[in-house]
Amino acid sequence: MHDRIFIFDTTLRDGEQSPGCSMNVEEKLRMARQLERLNVDVVEAGFPASSAGDFEAVRAIAGELTRCAVAGLSRALPADIDRTWEAIRGARRPRIHTFIATSDIHLAHKLKKTREQVLRDAVRAVEYARTLTGDVEFSCEDASRTDPGYLAEIAQAVVAAGATVLNLPDTVGYAVPEEYGAMFRRVRERLGGAPVILSAHCHNDLGLAVANSLAAIENGARQIECTVNGIGERAGNAALEEIVIALNVRSEKLGAVTTVEATEIYRSSRLLSSLTGMMVQRNKAIVGANAFAHEAGIHQDGMLKSAITYEIVTPQTVGIRHSTLVLGKHSGRHALRKRYAELGYDLTAEELERAYTAFCALADTKKEVYDEELIAVLDAETRNAASDIRLVGLHVSTGTSTRPTATVELRRGEETMVDSATGDGPVDAMYRAIERLTGVVGRLTEYSLKSVSTGHDTVGEVFVRVEFDGVSYNGRAVSTDVITGSARAYLEAMNRALTVRSRREGRTKQSIAYAAGVV
Amino acid sequence: MHDRIFIFDTTLRDGEQSPGCSMNVEEKLRMARQLERLNVDVVEAGFPASSAGDFEAVRAIAGELTRCAVAGLSRALPADIDRTWEAIRGARRPRIHTFIATSDIHLAHKLKKTREQVLRDAVRAVEYARTLTGDVEFSCEDASRTDPGYLAEIAQAVVAAGATVLNLPDTVGYAVPEEYGAMFRRVRERLGGAPVILSAHCHNDLGLAVANSLAAIENGARQIECTVNGIGERAGNAALEEIVIALNVRSEKLGAVTTVEATEIYRSSRLLSSLTGMMVQRNKAIVGANAFAHEAGIHQDGMLKSAITYEIVTPQTVGIRHSTLVLGKHSGRHALRKRYAELGYDLTAEELERAYTAFCALADTKKEVYDEELIAVLDAETRNAASDIRLVGLHVSTGTSTRPTATVELRRGEETMVDSATGDGPVDAMYRAIERLTGVVGRLTEYSLKSVSTGHDTVGEVFVRVEFDGVSYNGRAVSTDVITGSARAYLEAMNRALTVRSRREGRTKQSIAYAAGVV
Repeated sequence: MHDRIFIFDTTLRDGEQSPGCSMNVEEKLRMARQLERLNVDVVEAGFPASSAGDFEAVRAIAGELTRCAVAGLSRALPADIDRTWEAIRGARRPRIHTFIATSDIHLAHKLKKTREQVLRDAVRAVEYARTLTGDVEFSCEDASRTDPGYLAEIAQAVVAAGATVLNLPDTVGYAVPEEYGAMFRRVRERLGGAPVILSAHCHNDLGLAVANSLAAIENGARQIECTVNGIGERAGNAALEEIVIALNVRSEKLGAVTTVEATEIYRSSRLLSSLTGMMVQRNKAIVGANAFAHEAGIHQDGMLKSAITYEIVTPQTVGIRHSTLVLGKHSGRHALRKRYAELGYDLTAEELERAYTAFCALADTKKEVYDEELIAVLDAETRNAASDIRLVGLHVSTGTSTRPTATVELRRGEETMVDSATGDGPVDAMYRAIERLTGVVGRLTEYSLKSVSTGHDTVGEVFVRVEFDGVSYNGRAVSTDVITGSARAYLEAMNRALTVRSRREGRTKQSIAYAAGVV
Repeated sequence: MHDRIFIFDTTLRDGEQSPGCSMNVEEKLRMARQLERLNVDVVEAGFPASSAGDFEAVRAIAGELTRCAVAGLSRALPADIDRTWEAIRGARRPRIHTFIATSDIHLAHKLKKTREQVLRDAVRAVEYARTLTGDVEFSCEDASRTDPGYLAEIAQAVVAAGATVLNLPDTVGYAVPEEYGAMFRRVRERLGGAPVILSAHCHNDLGLAVANSLAAIENGARQIECTVNGIGERAGNAALEEIVIALNVRSEKLGAVTTVEATEIYRSSRLLSSLTGMMVQRNKAIVGANAFAHEAGIHQDGMLKSAITYEIVTPQTVGIRHSTLVLGKHSGRHALRKRYAELGYDLTAEELERAYTAFCALADTKKEVYDEELIAVLDAETRNAASDIRLVGLHVSTGTSTRPTATVELRRGEETMVDSATGDGPVDAMYRAIERLTGVVGRLTEYSLKSVSTGHDTVGEVFVRVEFDGVSYNGRAVSTDVITGSARAYLEAMNRALTVRSRREGRTKQSIAYAAGVV
């Protein structure tokens, strides 16, 4: 009989707040829907009191998920807890997750409070949260560096106050498995048989996040907090896919199982990379391009390595499928919809129409369209739908003895504008022309381009991160032409910035309404 | 008193043999020199009997390193061992590393041998290797899935036969820390006080490679096999930087230390990425872009996180420096040489001259040249030196209503050739023109472009992987113009392929000489 481990996914909270991982409301919703397909137990959707955007995202997710519990993070302050409750109260299974740091180092340098004050704040926060909902998680931030006696004391106090889940994070990724496990054992002994779920939350600064999580399970933890692709602050959180597959492959040894739908792992990983531009390195466990490389027909030195000798997980386990049927220019809407369905995307009529238009444009320039390209096209097209400044035309001339020159034609509503500029390279020239046309000045902080399939007629996925008004926005586009793709990606980032700018101007009243608890 | 742990780096063997990580002799030499600066104890330079290229690389490295031991991998066959010895005998500290699989699953499906046969082969191999050198390592491939009784038996036999190092790898990345540690405890007990160094070699399929390595140390292992950036088969090997920093940060708890020069870690990571195109994800522990992101001035929600509360390792520890002085077009050779020296590159006069020419071209198109760009330029320039087909001129015209067209002018020796072609995109058009000019047909299997610093006038690093004659070659180039960079990267890959082709034609005689032990 194996113990059931609950998977608490914090991709949208601890993951999302790390550099390069920010998502807007619509992107967070898409990811949340995928997390529900993945069948995690809890989705931590954000930190509602931290920003209006986070509040909106958490509320939207709470209103949409039907199976997963939806958690909102909250400092141990009544105002934060109220705001969190506003955001999650629409969920079928809302959870308030409140926290305070408990290590002396955090008490002295961050909170500037005594242990007694922190203990009192923690208990009050839990008691207050319990007046709002029956599912309250409490986290002792920096638990692994907290004095053991004090940690046990605060654990006992918050459980007595009504915490249903007690999380003991290794906030700075400092612990080694043996000591992290020992902490759970001590706290569990102190709590006796109190009806509380112990939870582990590990960071990977020393490469030990997964091992620490497993050590916690061996010592009584029954909830693991983790993120898809292991994204998160600094070196990231424990990777969901590694935890789930380790428990899956070694369930006999570890005596524990999850109910995560492993075949949705690869799709979840791919969607997150695509939404954030955070690429997964080739040798990443479970979801990297090389993880199953010997399966993909790559054999070293002509030596065939049979699956049984080297493979402990099959690609199929995590939902990697090798397609046999290739779509081309003669494929119709029906075939396209069918293939998307096989890939796990149920398209609305409108989405199908947009995807089909993009597919035809692509099939016109290349003979075979691969699954990766279909996914990339869909991701790009569904995001571009709401853009208000659109690329109408583009011409670029460049070379070794040519001053790179770009002519760009844009449309905003009914207005068409055209201008040209020169630059250090064709992409730079094109961005300067866009700047000149729109008067919107951005600072490109990241640019990358990756082929999504193989062959000369490859489709490239351009990812950009551009700073407007001091805030970074992601843009992404797919094209066989690197320059056109670069233009579209830049415009996507710009359109997002303009949306935020116009929302901000119209939002002052709404914010006041939020603060008063009216909305 | 801490135990000294020996670091056995297998970046150039287990790392290099994984998909996407292949390096030529010159690249392996550059990496080996950096590993010596990193002060690892043993460099496993390759698998000499596997190919002529590996043989050459191992011999070159053996002839150059002065402090590190140089190991060559060898199957448990006299002919393999002879070939390995040929390759490493020039080393100041040569080590023969021989192995055979010991798990029943490998015996049945790969070796088709009985346990008795394998035991006899192992003992003979070690005895034979000891007639050649005093430093012989033996590995039981798939040790973690080997019958414990048989593993202890074979361990005892090879140590009696003279093995000085006994490696017990978790070949398929299947073990969890507790059981991997227990295996070392059992074997150590069986060996009594025999004078042998136990070694751990872990794969990261379940995300546990570092934790398993530490569990081995707790149970008596004194050598850890690992790779820079954790490259290696499938999900890779244990990451050297994670092992070293975990032992460094937690030396009190773990009671063990290495003599690795931690400040060389970042440079080693960067060099390997640059040589192979294997990028490190942002949230990779120790060497990812986000690992120290809060240090880089990124603060969430305006909350300043002081170093003491969240930082367990400083960027300086691993050699990440923030430059203050920025070079520009008025900087001279002296300033350039000085900056390269600060970055750890001691340039020859010829290298400086080439780097200076490239630097001037770059400084002409942008105001400030950053350290990352200097390193990228150097890496690209020193590799392009031996190219025989060179780009003389290029002109590209593309856009939304233009058929992408490229005109390319190449020089090969005295001959100049010019032609044009159209394609699906400007990069495709340019590659088609090159194909048309040279008659050399390649298949582009990977293409990526990444900015190496920030701002519109950014320098992009193009990385391509192209298949010629069924073999993949990497090409890399740095340029402000994505199209020109793409051309140069492609030509670099092509030139490598042509070098190999011409070498192969001239090598038949030489190979016979190798086989006869004459060279």
